[in-house]
Amino acid sequence: MTDATNIAGRLTLAIDAMGGDAGAEAVIGGVAHAVSKGLDAKFLIFGDERELTPLLEASAALKNVEIRHTDNVVAMTDKPSHVIRRGRDTSMWAAMSAVKDGEAQAVVSCGNTGALMALARLQLRMIEGVDRPAITALWPTMRGSTVVLDVGANVEADANQLVQFAIMGEAFYRALMNVEKPSVGLLNVGAEDLKGHELIRTAARVLREADPDMAFKGFVEGDDISKGTVDVVVTDGFSGNIALKSAEGAARLVGSWVREALTGTINAKFGALFMAPGLRKLKDRINPSSSNGGVFLGVNGVVVKSHGGADARGVASAVNMAAGLARQPFREEVAATVKTVMSRQDKIGETSAIEPSAKAAVV
Amino acid sequence: MTDATNIAGRLTLAIDAMGGDAGAEAVIGGVAHAVSKGLDAKFLIFGDERELTPLLEASAALKNVEIRHTDNVVAMTDKPSHVIRRGRDTSMWAAMSAVKDGEAQAVVSCGNTGALMALARLQLRMIEGVDRPAITALWPTMRGSTVVLDVGANVEADANQLVQFAIMGEAFYRALMNVEKPSVGLLNVGAEDLKGHELIRTAARVLREADPDMAFKGFVEGDDISKGTVDVVVTDGFSGNIALKSAEGAARLVGSWVREALTGTINAKFGALFMAPGLRKLKDRINPSSSNGGVFLGVNGVVVKSHGGADARGVASAVNMAAGLARQPFREEVAATVKTVMSRQDKIGETSAIEPSAKAAVV
Repeated sequence: MTDATNIAGRLTLAIDAMGGDAGAEAVIGGVAHAVSKGLDAKFLIFGDERELTPLLEASAALKNVEIRHTDNVVAMTDKPSHVIRRGRDTSMWAAMSAVKDGEAQAVVSCGNTGALMALARLQLRMIEGVDRPAITALWPTMRGSTVVLDVGANVEADANQLVQFAIMGEAFYRALMNVEKPSVGLLNVGAEDLKGHELIRTAARVLREADPDMAFKGFVEGDDISKGTVDVVVTDGFSGNIALKSAEGAARLVGSWVREALTGTINAKFGALFMAPGLRKLKDRINPSSSNGGVFLGVNGVVVKSHGGADARGVASAVNMAAGLARQPFREEVAATVKTVMSRQDKIGETSAIEPSAKAAVV
Repeated sequence: MTDATNIAGRLTLAIDAMGGDAGAEAVIGGVAHAVSKGLDAKFLIFGDERELTPLLEASAALKNVEIRHTDNVVAMTDKPSHVIRRGRDTSMWAAMSAVKDGEAQAVVSCGNTGALMALARLQLRMIEGVDRPAITALWPTMRGSTVVLDVGANVEADANQLVQFAIMGEAFYRALMNVEKPSVGLLNVGAEDLKGHELIRTAARVLREADPDMAFKGFVEGDDISKGTVDVVVTDGFSGNIALKSAEGAARLVGSWVREALTGTINAKFGALFMAPGLRKLKDRINPSSSNGGVFLGVNGVVVKSHGGADARGVASAVNMAAGLARQPFREEVAATVKTVMSRQDKIGETSAIEPSAKAAVV
C-alpha cells in the first residue's frame, strides 16, 4: 500500500509492458513520450527482459527505468479466475505486487481488463466502505472533459453502489482535474412518465440528502455526456458501457463522413490544404488516444487500464493519469466521505417508508 | 382498425397538427414537402381551423386535405393520465380516433410522447400476443440505416418482451426498407466476464431456438449501432434511450468541431469554398431531420411520433415513414410470428432447467 510519505517523495510507477495488443514497443514508447513531455517519475517495467532491454536502449529519453523480468504474460483470452490461480509469474501480477508492497504508487497495464481487475481486488483489496469497484472513462465535451463511471466493472449496481460511484467519481475528478467542486449527475432517461429505475431515484435522494457538500445536479441524459453538462456522470457498468461505445461509434461515423467530404473530389482536396491547422486539431480531437486510460476506482491503490490497442500517445495519456492520481490523497477522501454518507443514508432509509411523496418531489 | 382493402386503396393519413414545439406551420410544411416529393395520400388534418386554414391556403402543393377542427391541444407538460381522462376534445385524441375508426391508416403527431402512447394503447389496443409497445428510432450508419428499439416506451423489459421487440423490429425493418431478411442483434456489453444481464442471455437463447427464420446475429455493442453491424438493434427503453442520446450528443460534438475547423480562420473559410458539395452532403447527413420519426410498435395501428422540434423536412420524413408502414401488412405478420415463437418458447422454458450448459454455449 502506498503511504503519504511516498506521495510527497519521488513518484514510482509500475508498468506492465506485456499483454497489450500493440505490444511492449507501444508501452515503452508511451512511457518515453510522457517523460519527454515533462513527467518526473521512476519506472519499474515488468516483462520479458529480452524484449524490453533493446527497446529501452533505443530510447534516449528514458533514464530512471528498471526492468523487472517476468517469465509469463496474461493473455487477452485468459479468464480472470485462471490468472488468480496460476498467474504469479506474469508481468501483470508482478506489477500489481509492486503497488501492494509500496514499491510503486500506481500501476499501468494495457492487458486483459478482467484479469487486471481481479488482481487489483485480490492484491490491493477494496477501500473500506466501498462495495464494488468502478471503471472510469474520460470523454471530451464541448466544455472540457467529463468522467463517466462505471463503464464496465459491474453489469448492475444498486442504489448504494451508485452513491459510492458518485463519491468516487467526484473525488477522482477533483484529484485529476484540480477542480474543487466537480458537478455530478446520475445518468437517466428523460421522458417524464418513466423517469428511470426506482434505484436511480433512490440514489438521487440519498445524494441530495446525505451528501450536501457535493454539487449534485440530479439526472442527466445521454447527450449531456458530450455536452459536458456535468463533470461526472454516474451510472452502472451496463449503461455506462453502452453510452460510451454508442458515443464512440457515432463520433467515428461522423469522422468518416468528414473524411469523405474532405477527400471526395480534387477540389475538396485542394480546399483542405487551406484549412490544414484546423483539420489537424480536428483529427487530434477525434483521436481517442488523447483521453485514453480507465482508472479502477474503489481498490486500495491507483490502477490504470490503458486500451489494449493504444499507441504511444495513448499509453502516455494513461501514464500521466496514473501519476496525477498517485500524487493526490483521493482514496483517503473517498473512504471518509463514503463512511459519512453511508451512515447518514441509514437514517434516510429509516424515514423513507413514511414519506413516499417526498421521494417523488426530489426527482 | 385498418383492414386489407384500405391498404390496397388510397392511403389516408391522420395528422395531429398541434402540440409540437415548432407549431402547426412546421407540420403543414412537412406534409406539403412529402407531397411535393411524390407521396400520394389523402390527409385529415386535426387542429384549430382558424390556425390551419390560412396555412393550407398558402400551400399550393396540398390538394387532398381535409381540416378536422378540434378545440383543444395536448400540452407537452400534460400527464398521460390526465389526457386519457379529459383529452377527448384534443387534436391528438381525434387524430388517433380516425385510425381507430378506420378512416385513416396511420397517424402522425409531433406532440407529447407519453400522451400519444397512452392514447394509442387506449384506443388501438395492443397486437394480440404482444405485452408492451416499443418505440423505434432510425439511426444512420456506415452502411445505411439501423433501427434501434425500444428507445423509451418502457424503462425495463423482461426476456419475453425483448424477444417480442426483436420480432416487431425485424418486421418493421422489412416493411420500411424492403429488406427480405433483416439482421437482428441484442444490445449488450462486451467484456467476456460480465456479458450482460441474465435476461438478455435468455432472450438470445429464445431467439436462436424459437425463431430459426430470423437472421439473429447474437449480441452487439454500442458502437455497432453506428457501424451498421445489424439492421435491427434490440434493447430495453432505458438502454436504448441512453445509447441513442449518447450517440446524438457525440455526433453533435464532432459536428461542432468540424464547424470550428472550417470557419476558424480566413484560410479555412476560403478552403471550404472548394469543398462545398461535400460539405453540403455532410451537413445533410448530420441533420437529424433525415431520420426523424419514431414508430410505436406493438399497438394495433400505425402511430408515428415526430420529434417535437422537427422542421418541415423532419415532419416529411415521419409522414413518409407512416405511409410506408401503413401500406404493409406488418402487424399481421408480427401477430403470427409472436404466436409461433412464444408457443415454442414455452417448450424451451421447460427444458432449460436441465440444460444449463447449453445456455452458456449459445451466448
